[in-house]
Amino acid sequence: MALIVQKYGGTSVGSPERIKAVAERVKRWKEKGNDVVVVVSAMSGETNRLTALMDEVNANGSNRERDVVLATGEQVTIGLLSMALAAVDCPAISYTGGQVKILTDNAYSKARIQEIDDKPIKKDLQAGKVVIVAGFQGVDEQGNITTLGRGGSDTTAVALAVALKADECQIYTDVDGVYTTDPRVVPEASHIPSLALEEMLEMASQGSKVLQIRAVEFAYKYDMPIRVLSSFDDDDNAKSTLVTREEDIMEKVMVRGIAFNRDEAQLTISGVPDKPGVAIKILEPISDANIEVDMIVQNIGSDKTTDFTFTVHRNDYQQAKQILEGVSESLNARECSGDDRIAKVSIVGVGMRSHAGVASKMFKALADEGINIRMISTSEIKVSVVIDEKYLELATRTLHEVFDMASGTSAT
Amino acid sequence: MALIVQKYGGTSVGSPERIKAVAERVKRWKEKGNDVVVVVSAMSGETNRLTALMDEVNANGSNRERDVVLATGEQVTIGLLSMALAAVDCPAISYTGGQVKILTDNAYSKARIQEIDDKPIKKDLQAGKVVIVAGFQGVDEQGNITTLGRGGSDTTAVALAVALKADECQIYTDVDGVYTTDPRVVPEASHIPSLALEEMLEMASQGSKVLQIRAVEFAYKYDMPIRVLSSFDDDDNAKSTLVTREEDIMEKVMVRGIAFNRDEAQLTISGVPDKPGVAIKILEPISDANIEVDMIVQNIGSDKTTDFTFTVHRNDYQQAKQILEGVSESLNARECSGDDRIAKVSIVGVGMRSHAGVASKMFKALADEGINIRMISTSEIKVSVVIDEKYLELATRTLHEVFDMASGTSAT
Repeated sequence: MALIVQKYGGTSVGSPERIKAVAERVKRWKEKGNDVVVVVSAMSGETNRLTALMDEVNANGSNRERDVVLATGEQVTIGLLSMALAAVDCPAISYTGGQVKILTDNAYSKARIQEIDDKPIKKDLQAGKVVIVAGFQGVDEQGNITTLGRGGSDTTAVALAVALKADECQIYTDVDGVYTTDPRVVPEASHIPSLALEEMLEMASQGSKVLQIRAVEFAYKYDMPIRVLSSFDDDDNAKSTLVTREEDIMEKVMVRGIAFNRDEAQLTISGVPDKPGVAIKILEPISDANIEVDMIVQNIGSDKTTDFTFTVHRNDYQQAKQILEGVSESLNARECSGDDRIAKVSIVGVGMRSHAGVASKMFKALADEGINIRMISTSEIKVSVVIDEKYLELATRTLHEVFDMASGTSAT
Repeated sequence: MALIVQKYGGTSVGSPERIKAVAERVKRWKEKGNDVVVVVSAMSGETNRLTALMDEVNANGSNRERDVVLATGEQVTIGLLSMALAAVDCPAISYTGGQVKILTDNAYSKARIQEIDDKPIKKDLQAGKVVIVAGFQGVDEQGNITTLGRGGSDTTAVALAVALKADECQIYTDVDGVYTTDPRVVPEASHIPSLALEEMLEMASQGSKVLQIRAVEFAYKYDMPIRVLSSFDDDDNAKSTLVTREEDIMEKVMVRGIAFNRDEAQLTISGVPDKPGVAIKILEPISDANIEVDMIVQNIGSDKTTDFTFTVHRNDYQQAKQILEGVSESLNARECSGDDRIAKVSIVGVGMRSHAGVASKMFKALADEGINIRMISTSEIKVSVVIDEKYLELATRTLHEVFDMASGTSAT
């Protein structure tokens, strides 16, 4: 007997039929003797419908009031799922974020969970009920409704699992787990049955959109195992990916997966004075404009000047370029350039820590295909390169083959 | 400077455009120096949409979970209206029933308000804000979401007005007040600028659907003046009907209005023993089946037997008839009959109290038109008759003319 927290996303509860299918699945888990807590998102399309209504009334409405409206999406789903469970004779009770209660700070639209009261849920579980909790939402200390931001339901699920000391947090989605890379780019991409939270963190932040990065961070911090499963497969023993702490991973492969991201743009400021304080002078106005910077690279300078390159989201490219041109002038820089037709490709794996030569193998493989590397950035378990966008698919396929991932494990 | 509670129904907030129009109106009242609290319903169509979703998932879902889902309708409206007010520079804040908080019993789907905390609202009003409250909903002592039943938003508005000691409770709807009778039946029906709560109670319960009867009862109990206005008329000095305590009514007319109802059916059991306890033997099984009885008439008996007649909602007719046939047998009654093609017509007015002859004038007018009266029931301020349904329009027009209501006042 285990305590399991399950989370179902918008497409998994997108219609009355899908909600009934979720109820059947929850009932099966319950009948195996498990205690089950279910976190649900708004039905797919609902958040967009509410957003459109709000934008018609006031596109600049306060985040407090937007949260009041948005929180209704999940509230509808919890009631419907509870009724669907009752219809299959599986007693259930629903709670909004405010009822549980999931206490957050008051940063409307992007609130952070501070505390969860586990007592009422435990009492209901002891009474044999399935407990259904609205994802994505909470209340602040004054009782104002808050939301955690898009995709926050994953975070709710992991936070609840942590608060309840659950055995596993199951995230049901429309795919059956994490793959070595996007199968749309590399048809041979293989399913990963288990990987480390650290790897998932790198995979998620690099653009593998299976799990919200905040939820993975949360799970990482509190050592909560996450299992990613498909809600479209009725077989409860179907494929899944278990994301767990590194020491629990049986097989430590060198390269676990390949992540890529084509939403970035690159900006370079050349010939700036190579002295302390320059980086901050360049990046501060960018961050003041609420533009997030991803990769940052600065080469060792020559001639007492240096080149400074960073990437931003492609949507922020024009604004960032304008800001940089102002900075360029005040710093007496030689030149200011940029490119928004770039892509980032990363290899990820905890095994890299103990294996030298992974990066050089990567660089050689790309060079053999004539792919020029514009930027390089590395961490203990990741190597990222920025290349021309047109080479993205070729680079991903090449690396997938070189690291022998089609078989599901990597060679060295 | 006054404190005003305004309530806007579903059609008044049925689209982003209508919500913006409501915001403009609220702003005008606020700018005149009033403190304004606004109660809103769900956007028209929304409750039906949610009900259809629920029925698809589980037509017999628990009322607790149905309330969780239904309460989202008003929650969307409060957020939208608050944003619409912000867009016209009128500071506002929204509250769900649970946030205010509106404490109810736990009779899901038909909860009764027990207490309202007026402190947070008063604080916001003092800070110059318009306070927007979700109608139709509350929470019980355990924090479960409850709803007051359809049309409960009127009750929320009156209850809030009472709790806040408001000067007036304004109910905005799609008509500009109460008329002497339904203008679709009598085109000459005239607008009533003011009438007594007692009269409104009789008008409402007799089928004039401008105000929910529970709200009028509440206002009657706590002496809260209600004003019925149209949200479709942009002129704030347009026609309205003020419903207030009897002693505040300037002009006490004899007959204020004519109400009618064609949703009833009549049942008669004849030749039952004329002795104590018979009425309860007849009515108890009806009420045990949750069938509501409206009019009850029993004539003085002869031959130690009597006839007993009552009316029920037309939807309950077949079931009530079946029950009555069982009772008839056990009471050795002579006969059991019924008719579901009847209508009830009532004249209403506090002036009747001090004027004799109103009833006989009514009966004579109907007789002159050849309309047979099947049942009569009277109260201090009302005379109701049951007639064949086919005579309903004729009876209403005749009485409207006889009591000279086209001019807006009644003759004697």
